[in-house]
Amino acid sequence: MKKYVYAFHEGNKEMKSLLGGKGANLAEMIKIGLPVPPGFTVTTEACNKYYDDGQKISQDIIDEIFCHLHELENNTQKRFGDYNNPLLVSVRSGAVVSMPGMMDTILNLGLNDESVIGLAKATGNERFAYDSYRRFIQMFSDVVLNIQKYKFDNILEKEKRSSKVQLDTDLTVDNLKNIIKEYKKIVKKETKKAFPQEPKKQLLMAIEAVFGSWNNARAIIYRDINDIPNHYGTAVNVQSMVFGNMGEKSGTGVAFTRNPATGEKKLFGEFLMNAQGEDVVAGIRTPQPICELKNTMPKVYEQFVNVANLLEKHYKDMQDIEFTIENEKLYLLQTRNGKRTAAAAINIAVDMVEENIIDKETAIMRIEPAQLDQLLHPTFEEEAMQKIEKITQGLPASPGAATGRIYFNANDLVKAANEGEMTILVRLETSPEDIEGMVAAQGILTARGGMTSHAAVVARGMGKCCVAGCGEIKVDEINKVFKIDGKIFKEGDYLSLDGNTGNVYAGKLPTKEPELSGNFAKLMSWADEIRTLKIRTNADTPKDALTAVKFGAEGIGLCRTEHMFFKEERIPAVRQMIIAQNVEERMKALNKLLPFQKEDFIGIFEAMGERPVTVRLLDPPLHEFLPNNDEDIKILSKQINVSYNTLKEIVEDLKEFNPMLGHRGCRLAITYPEIYQMQVRAMIMAAIQVKKQKNIHVQLEIMVPLIGHEKELEIIKKLIVSTANEVIENSDENIVYKIGTMIEVPRAALTADDIAKHAEFFSFGTNDLTQMTYAFSRDDAGRFIGEYRKKEIFKKDPFQRLDKIGVGKLMEIATQLGKRTRSDIKLGICGEHGGDPEAIDFCHKIGLHYVSCSPYRIPIARLAAAHAVINNK
Amino acid sequence: MKKYVYAFHEGNKEMKSLLGGKGANLAEMIKIGLPVPPGFTVTTEACNKYYDDGQKISQDIIDEIFCHLHELENNTQKRFGDYNNPLLVSVRSGAVVSMPGMMDTILNLGLNDESVIGLAKATGNERFAYDSYRRFIQMFSDVVLNIQKYKFDNILEKEKRSSKVQLDTDLTVDNLKNIIKEYKKIVKKETKKAFPQEPKKQLLMAIEAVFGSWNNARAIIYRDINDIPNHYGTAVNVQSMVFGNMGEKSGTGVAFTRNPATGEKKLFGEFLMNAQGEDVVAGIRTPQPICELKNTMPKVYEQFVNVANLLEKHYKDMQDIEFTIENEKLYLLQTRNGKRTAAAAINIAVDMVEENIIDKETAIMRIEPAQLDQLLHPTFEEEAMQKIEKITQGLPASPGAATGRIYFNANDLVKAANEGEMTILVRLETSPEDIEGMVAAQGILTARGGMTSHAAVVARGMGKCCVAGCGEIKVDEINKVFKIDGKIFKEGDYLSLDGNTGNVYAGKLPTKEPELSGNFAKLMSWADEIRTLKIRTNADTPKDALTAVKFGAEGIGLCRTEHMFFKEERIPAVRQMIIAQNVEERMKALNKLLPFQKEDFIGIFEAMGERPVTVRLLDPPLHEFLPNNDEDIKILSKQINVSYNTLKEIVEDLKEFNPMLGHRGCRLAITYPEIYQMQVRAMIMAAIQVKKQKNIHVQLEIMVPLIGHEKELEIIKKLIVSTANEVIENSDENIVYKIGTMIEVPRAALTADDIAKHAEFFSFGTNDLTQMTYAFSRDDAGRFIGEYRKKEIFKKDPFQRLDKIGVGKLMEIATQLGKRTRSDIKLGICGEHGGDPEAIDFCHKIGLHYVSCSPYRIPIARLAAAHAVINNK
Repeated sequence: MKKYVYAFHEGNKEMKSLLGGKGANLAEMIKIGLPVPPGFTVTTEACNKYYDDGQKISQDIIDEIFCHLHELENNTQKRFGDYNNPLLVSVRSGAVVSMPGMMDTILNLGLNDESVIGLAKATGNERFAYDSYRRFIQMFSDVVLNIQKYKFDNILEKEKRSSKVQLDTDLTVDNLKNIIKEYKKIVKKETKKAFPQEPKKQLLMAIEAVFGSWNNARAIIYRDINDIPNHYGTAVNVQSMVFGNMGEKSGTGVAFTRNPATGEKKLFGEFLMNAQGEDVVAGIRTPQPICELKNTMPKVYEQFVNVANLLEKHYKDMQDIEFTIENEKLYLLQTRNGKRTAAAAINIAVDMVEENIIDKETAIMRIEPAQLDQLLHPTFEEEAMQKIEKITQGLPASPGAATGRIYFNANDLVKAANEGEMTILVRLETSPEDIEGMVAAQGILTARGGMTSHAAVVARGMGKCCVAGCGEIKVDEINKVFKIDGKIFKEGDYLSLDGNTGNVYAGKLPTKEPELSGNFAKLMSWADEIRTLKIRTNADTPKDALTAVKFGAEGIGLCRTEHMFFKEERIPAVRQMIIAQNVEERMKALNKLLPFQKEDFIGIFEAMGERPVTVRLLDPPLHEFLPNNDEDIKILSKQINVSYNTLKEIVEDLKEFNPMLGHRGCRLAITYPEIYQMQVRAMIMAAIQVKKQKNIHVQLEIMVPLIGHEKELEIIKKLIVSTANEVIENSDENIVYKIGTMIEVPRAALTADDIAKHAEFFSFGTNDLTQMTYAFSRDDAGRFIGEYRKKEIFKKDPFQRLDKIGVGKLMEIATQLGKRTRSDIKLGICGEHGGDPEAIDFCHKIGLHYVSCSPYRIPIARLAAAHAVINNK
Repeated sequence: MKKYVYAFHEGNKEMKSLLGGKGANLAEMIKIGLPVPPGFTVTTEACNKYYDDGQKISQDIIDEIFCHLHELENNTQKRFGDYNNPLLVSVRSGAVVSMPGMMDTILNLGLNDESVIGLAKATGNERFAYDSYRRFIQMFSDVVLNIQKYKFDNILEKEKRSSKVQLDTDLTVDNLKNIIKEYKKIVKKETKKAFPQEPKKQLLMAIEAVFGSWNNARAIIYRDINDIPNHYGTAVNVQSMVFGNMGEKSGTGVAFTRNPATGEKKLFGEFLMNAQGEDVVAGIRTPQPICELKNTMPKVYEQFVNVANLLEKHYKDMQDIEFTIENEKLYLLQTRNGKRTAAAAINIAVDMVEENIIDKETAIMRIEPAQLDQLLHPTFEEEAMQKIEKITQGLPASPGAATGRIYFNANDLVKAANEGEMTILVRLETSPEDIEGMVAAQGILTARGGMTSHAAVVARGMGKCCVAGCGEIKVDEINKVFKIDGKIFKEGDYLSLDGNTGNVYAGKLPTKEPELSGNFAKLMSWADEIRTLKIRTNADTPKDALTAVKFGAEGIGLCRTEHMFFKEERIPAVRQMIIAQNVEERMKALNKLLPFQKEDFIGIFEAMGERPVTVRLLDPPLHEFLPNNDEDIKILSKQINVSYNTLKEIVEDLKEFNPMLGHRGCRLAITYPEIYQMQVRAMIMAAIQVKKQKNIHVQLEIMVPLIGHEKELEIIKKLIVSTANEVIENSDENIVYKIGTMIEVPRAALTADDIAKHAEFFSFGTNDLTQMTYAFSRDDAGRFIGEYRKKEIFKKDPFQRLDKIGVGKLMEIATQLGKRTRSDIKLGICGEHGGDPEAIDFCHKIGLHYVSCSPYRIPIARLAAAHAVINNK
């Protein structure tokens, strides 16, 4: 028979997929002799069985749970529901991959009207016993019975008011008994049943609630964002309670073995005396820094420091540890690899290599490439910051800089963000309900909570700027305002947050490029040693090209020429070219454009030096350059001296039913060869000038878009060669260039052997290739893609995540066929997928030579390419 | 060294690709002992070399030609340019595949101011000699020197007028000498050189002209229409002259061994006494029927009959024979397999099987499937014909019926045809310059020319209705009118032609379905025995379904349901369904449509009996059903009681950037499952009713369009099954059905193994598959496809001719992957390519089970499927 329940001492850290992360680590800590309260874990397989059985815990599993419970009673010498010395347990979820704050926890389970007396007797602390019972009813009602929390809070506040006390800890036993009476009334009213008194029933209800919470809305969203499969399931940990709220010699805390924001090698965390469980992370009372424990309880602190060192060495990674002190005795409730910012991740990984704890490959694998994103985005400009008003300062909970309009709840914010607003979420404190808002916001500001509060932990995980615990602001969520020093900030007002300092500024702030630290460069150089894929950039301007080089670009994989056409001083000539009714008129307009294009290319070539530069010839349909509405057509008609009616007719005539599938890309050059001729002339002339003036041998690669038939490329290649060679022959420079094509039309992939006859390189344009392969227009898919995601037809938008099955198969076919014709054909990708780590892994596997992505994603791509090598060893 | 010139006696009929059809057959006739004037053939390889050498005949080839000329002189005992007994030759093109009227011919070559005297002496007929010289100069000037023919005609007419003679044959020697003098003046004036007197020079110039004519515009068009490769080249036949114009005991003629219009086994042809070469087919003088020769020259006639029989038996096919009688001696100048109408082709093939000349497979291969087209189109309705005015009668030159507006030249006609007009080309006589007009016209009417005139031969080849030699009409091509009995018909007036009777009617005439004769049915039954592909039809209505069954359809491969939605009484409900803002409203509208859809299906099911019927669920984007302009939106807003603004907003909101790639096909069912549910309910209810009332077990196949991802099909299959089964369970009939999908999205083909998990059949939708694979929108490709054809990027529009390389590769991939998952998966094609013989061959090869095409193409598909078996043996 399958085993669904494991005592802690039966497990170890390798059993994560069965016991969940928390359960496996509790088992491991017991194994290495650390003080962990005993307990047992109900496995993830039990969770899956629960769902397979129609959301029902089978009798077998129930029997196994009670068997382990009995063992726990023997072990602790306490009995469940006992009138003298009751066993109390915590019930906690424990997913395979840590999902902070997403799952529900119940403490003090086992208390009822009898065992609360037993607890009082056993601890000699009646107040503590009733406070625990009060907490238990509140928590169980919230999590298991789904009664809204504020109803209990109101009673607590009322009792505090009527007794004129400030803190929960000031409440007397009688106060607590009153509260419990009132709490029970609420339960009776809301559930039509009395609060469950039978501890075993409480336990099963709690376990079911944990299983149930695996599929609550916020858990699903979290898994979706983080690519956690639904079938993983969660384990449930049932652990005998220890009490941090047993008085002033008790406490509870959370600490990281290194600083999770910076990576600094120094214990980092917080604790609260006379507090239980979630009090620390919930941010309701503001906790003390961990170093204060040294003064409060030196021995316990020393013991904790030793434990922390031991755990870090044992796990060879920075640990995030939860502990409780019960009457000066230290208990460990959890350890796990700590979440950290990208900066911290890099510093920790590099430090650990230098401390001989891990090797370089391990260090590289410690950094999720996507995580680097948070390092690569701008910070505020110093100067601007000095001129603007700093209104307050909170905790620098997650680094980065954010500017946007403020919103006070996730709904309003998401709505604004969907309309393209930059946004800041302002909350008293955040909770899992706010997740969607946090995803959409540029930054998060909370009035309450510490560095390990929900807002801080989640924001760091997302690489999102967060300022937490900013106590000076008075947030009124109902009226959507906050006040500070008498000033009022309303919904929609601009605010700027500096996640590195915790500073909050009124108004908008300009940003600047990130500086990349020494450890960053070191880690990148290790990645560069390992990776085999080259990393190029998509860049259309000298500025982008320079940024990309700074980030480590080894070439340009896609330089689009159409954006150059839109500039103000050029667009009239572009439009003249389009409405030209014969070759002469068209040539005249093109000749005006030639010097501009040449200057563009000179700038880019100089920026790139002797790195390869792939220039794509004009791609979009011509009507994209023409005005759309009557007013603009009238203006243009005057500008270029063509009658309104003629112009209107031309505009109408150029409209297409399906522009995506229309007269664009190389089709333009089949009908109007003059356009590509001008572009080729401009690039060759630019290369000549850069050679002459800077002695740079430009590595020019001329790329033809939208090829579907080898003859298209054959014809256009001839055109390029004759045009280029004419310019070269009239100069005294020896300019060399390659000619290749985008592979973005399915037919090109399917006939890549024929196309390779005329192409020295292929570059996969996975944006269009995805559109054609799926027969999805990116512009129109919005109408149904939501439903597709909801029905799990695909997990991710195929425009964000490469469709390896379909589009990927075309890429593989093209790669194989292309190499069959030309074994040294150069292969790359320049679609947006080129910056996505998963796609980079795929490109590595199928044997591409480079990926090309936006400048800011280059370090991500460098790291992902190293990951690909290691993962595919 | 390569041999570029062959004497006739060196060749045989198997050497067509080298000697051309004419040369090979001349050789063959000599081989079997028939009277053929001796000569030699310059090969097609010489023609290709001519082009490879930059349009120059190499010295080697010239030497070889003169060597053979010398042999010919010895052979004929005549000398080239001789003053006493000169050798004269004809120079004729001879392509591999017969290209009637497209190539140029020169007779009497070798004549000059000296040899004309020699010819007079040798023949004792001075008039004949000068007439021959006159003809030679005229022909040589036209064909070789490119001088416009009318200039010579004018001189001839002037001489006739001033001498007051009617016929060319009445001209005296002096007349002819005058004419020759004037002709030479024209040549001098036009070419700045005297008419070439050196016979060898004449010969080389003529050969070059033949080579050159291989690439004249009309030859290129003809090859393009008839899929003749450009690299075939043409041979040149140089043959010693015999003279049909040597007096009243001479003549020339053309005859078919069987009737080329009907297939009747009876010599069919025409001859002209005292005439030369092209006089018969050029239609300038009206010739006599071949049977008249029996009276004129009984012995020659008998000899000819024997020769004709011999040739037909030798070639095992109906022969088209050219002959000349020189002083009562019969010479054969050409034999070839005769062009024939489809009806004749069938009758001849079937008769020859019954005469034990050929076997059934040969008979089947004798009919080009596409040729059947002409048999399968409507003829005029008898009744209507009796009511309408028959204005005249011509020769029934090519069968069929045509109604349309008249045009007097190809340009005007093509323009009108491009605007969608039905057209009739009216000409005095046609010439190769008219080809494009003939292609575009519904029918052709000529005033002059016989059954073997240019118009008649070409029209039969095209399967186009033609009435020729209609002498009563007076055609004025300049003023674009024709007169008959004082009535005037202007450009744009309606006319109707009956190609089977030669009758010409004023006005428009309704048509009726063709009757399919006994031999047709016989041949089809032979094809059916051989073929392995099933033939289905694309039919959306009971009427189409019945027509298809009559033509031999074995099922429906594509029944589109969207056309049903457009009917007047339904469209309001369709629109209500579309603008519905919630499921209830949508269901209400769909419930209105349900009975209509049910009735549609009942009609189709009854028509098809127990043949399989594949019904495709709704495919087009919903906005196609909504009005487009403000006026119509206003009308609709009143009809359905929805405010104009709301409606306008809905219409605008449904517009898409790329509807082809938008919210359509199965995507509609992912978002609005109710639509497919209604359709499925309607088909199952219809099947139940047809079972109950007619005891027909409907073979229903439900087809889902636009699948790109297996999950789409998984979800929709569940929807179909649950909907269908609910209806079935509530009835007492056991309806069975299959569920399958279109393969029309590249991704579906690439992931066909996954998709086949949920599909019992695949049907290739090659229309959309071509659009997606090429990234061409059919609606927009017009803007550039002309240039693509011109630059030979593709020979044929890929929407007409299946792209076997690209789209075909996807079909092969899908076929293999589909079978891997489900070995018994049913595979078919329902794109328009399903009726194209070349695509049918491809479908046979890759292992599809059926093709589906329009009803009128079914016999073509049946025959093509048999061809595919034989061709791929």
